[in-house]
Amino acid sequence: MSPERTTGPFRASAGFTERWEHFDVDITDGVATVTFTRPDKLNALTFDVYADLRDLLTELPHRGDAKVVVIAGRGKGFCSGGDVEEIIGVLQELPAKQLLEFTRMTGAVVRALRECPLPVIASVNGVAAGAGSVIALACDFRLLATSAKFAFLFTKVGLAGADMGSAYLLPRLVGLGRATELLMLGDTVRAEQAERIGLATQVVDDTELPTTTTALARRLADGPAFAYSATKVLLSRELDMDLPGALELEAMTQALLMTSDDHREFYRAWQQGRNPQWTGA
Amino acid sequence: MSPERTTGPFRASAGFTERWEHFDVDITDGVATVTFTRPDKLNALTFDVYADLRDLLTELPHRGDAKVVVIAGRGKGFCSGGDVEEIIGVLQELPAKQLLEFTRMTGAVVRALRECPLPVIASVNGVAAGAGSVIALACDFRLLATSAKFAFLFTKVGLAGADMGSAYLLPRLVGLGRATELLMLGDTVRAEQAERIGLATQVVDDTELPTTTTALARRLADGPAFAYSATKVLLSRELDMDLPGALELEAMTQALLMTSDDHREFYRAWQQGRNPQWTGA
Amino acid sequence: MSPERTTGPFRASAGFTERWEHFDVDITDGVATVTFTRPDKLNALTFDVYADLRDLLTELPHRGDAKVVVIAGRGKGFCSGGDVEEIIGVLQELPAKQLLEFTRMTGAVVRALRECPLPVIASVNGVAAGAGSVIALACDFRLLATSAKFAFLFTKVGLAGADMGSAYLLPRLVGLGRATELLMLGDTVRAEQAERIGLATQVVDDTELPTTTTALARRLADGPAFAYSATKVLLSRELDMDLPGALELEAMTQALLMTSDDHREFYRAWQQGRNPQWTGA
Repeated sequence: MSPERTTGPFRASAGFTERWEHFDVDITDGVATVTFTRPDKLNALTFDVYADLRDLLTELPHRGDAKVVVIAGRGKGFCSGGDVEEIIGVLQELPAKQLLEFTRMTGAVVRALRECPLPVIASVNGVAAGAGSVIALACDFRLLATSAKFAFLFTKVGLAGADMGSAYLLPRLVGLGRATELLMLGDTVRAEQAERIGLATQVVDDTELPTTTTALARRLADGPAFAYSATKVLLSRELDMDLPGALELEAMTQALLMTSDDHREFYRAWQQGRNPQWTGA
Repeated sequence: MSPERTTGPFRASAGFTERWEHFDVDITDGVATVTFTRPDKLNALTFDVYADLRDLLTELPHRGDAKVVVIAGRGKGFCSGGDVEEIIGVLQELPAKQLLEFTRMTGAVVRALRECPLPVIASVNGVAAGAGSVIALACDFRLLATSAKFAFLFTKVGLAGADMGSAYLLPRLVGLGRATELLMLGDTVRAEQAERIGLATQVVDDTELPTTTTALARRLADGPAFAYSATKVLLSRELDMDLPGALELEAMTQALLMTSDDHREFYRAWQQGRNPQWTGA
Repeated sequence: MSPERTTGPFRASAGFTERWEHFDVDITDGVATVTFTRPDKLNALTFDVYADLRDLLTELPHRGDAKVVVIAGRGKGFCSGGDVEEIIGVLQELPAKQLLEFTRMTGAVVRALRECPLPVIASVNGVAAGAGSVIALACDFRLLATSAKFAFLFTKVGLAGADMGSAYLLPRLVGLGRATELLMLGDTVRAEQAERIGLATQVVDDTELPTTTTALARRLADGPAFAYSATKVLLSRELDMDLPGALELEAMTQALLMTSDDHREFYRAWQQGRNPQWTGA
């Protein structure tokens, strides 16, 4: 993280977090990469990872140096979900009020992913299970290695398959019938099936996953980022709007975008017969 | 039906129905099986079948001896929809008020299927047409024999393709484009196509349909039934909620489930290196 | 257009438009065909085409001589979207208030397509790009030639991929994941992929597109048109309703349809062992 930034234009007293202790964060050339760093545990989540992810996604858009976010896991898997000892074990002892504080925190991660105005890419190899599968589900793009496996396995630990918004999101990606099957039974979904039902953006060989991820991240960071951001935000919001409201939101948004630097640059470039030079503003 | 049960803990004056006269009901080892019993008419529906189905699905969760429901048809088909003579013929003579009472009753069947807190499996061979196709559509799982054929054929009798909630449900399973085609034109959908577009959970040979159905029903009845039930209810409800509301509902639900016997049993079993013994509570 | 019609039963002072100057309109035997007529520009849209399309779709149901609408493009493509010179060029100079008037007008076309009580068929060959792709998206049926290519290319000109309701409609046809990819990146979708993900009703050879289109239009015009119309309207409305509301709307609608001429005709024809003669009333 570049140490010089301590605040942003619409961030008053609160400074930026100096160090994210529970995963790696790298921000380079507009791409913020979050890497889960417990490869020996298949990147099982702890309370601290949820909290940091929620807070990072809230801070990041204020910094101004990131145009796209990548989430990946170190080692053989993306994220195996909540750690059985460090989370499920501890939950056994907590009173109801704290159980709710925990489940609300996990939901806040998904809300932050959907409301973050930057596009988010999940780069998934190996296991994406439980909360790990919902984190990937809440991203905008899911690039899968052929080794990738989703498992919404909550019922297999005696919990509701509806966790962190999965019962809201999954039917809106793959339809109610398939979502019922995946969330109720918790069985594994392999990369090929994920692609077929609309749960994967693309499936590539494991060896190609890093370059495919970098290429998409670069395309989003180097392109008309304001336009990408508006697209993502409206896609999220319009799931919860009726058609007349959605049309008005799109009309207002597009009128604003028509005054943007990037749209004007497109037209100039077209007139001059050259490629546009996007600034993201 | 076991004769000893006459009431449940949250059912005060109303007793349980002693005998369902318009289809067979068997409740064994937690699995309630409803079998349509007019095989010579491809299980065409009468007014009484709708009424009994609505009432059975309302009573069943109060009994406490069923954890999953299976709906199937005797003979060569699942259900060919409303009987042309006994329903359509009679409707020709009814005043507007009674027509509405009828259409509301048919909608109440679908509402009962979606709001029933037990998972419901449709076991479909042969024809599932008209109201029969919507009953299957409103179930949580659709196990299809290769002989299965859906036909939302309402327009072919001069009625709206939107019947019993089909214009709400079908786009949420297969998307608006395909739903428009299927409901407007009323053409037949074969098992293979149903699987491809997300209308079938699984397609098996006709000879294997009974054992596949029994295996899924047993899995749901023997597993963490409270978790399955919560998953179903939230999938239904969250179709009509926005993301922040859905996240709060999931947080509350999951906090409750974390105090359930089955979740605690999972953790104990994991500590002891054995399989969990689910009680469904 | 037949010159004798000047008003309809529920149209008081406003007469019908005598001549649509910005595309061809033909109404024959219940089929209204709109043909974009700038083949040398791949039917790029001008301000006037949007305005006429909005107004035609509002008038048409009042005329009473059209039961179905077909939208097609002359020449090698369906519609390449807003003309770069005549629209994008002009927009560079407009004040905010007029930009919004323009974006609202484009949204009004989509609202008119979705709220028009007649089924609308898009007959798509070659390019359907930008606004052209959204117009096809808002139709009820999309018949594609193998040459057809969709491109929601708004971000490629620096604008939001959410345009004319695309961020509302596309996720409801192909799921949020695929819609995010198509709207954010703006890449081309070929006919085969469109069919696979639920964006095409049917794909046929280019030479067969006109006859396939005519056959579907005739089927809709000659069939139970009131039933088709009710199906379309409820499919549109129920995207924005909850299940209990949708069930009540369907119950009311179907009770009304049960008193229609076409439903009574079905029953008479069935009794007499002949095919029904639909009148669309």
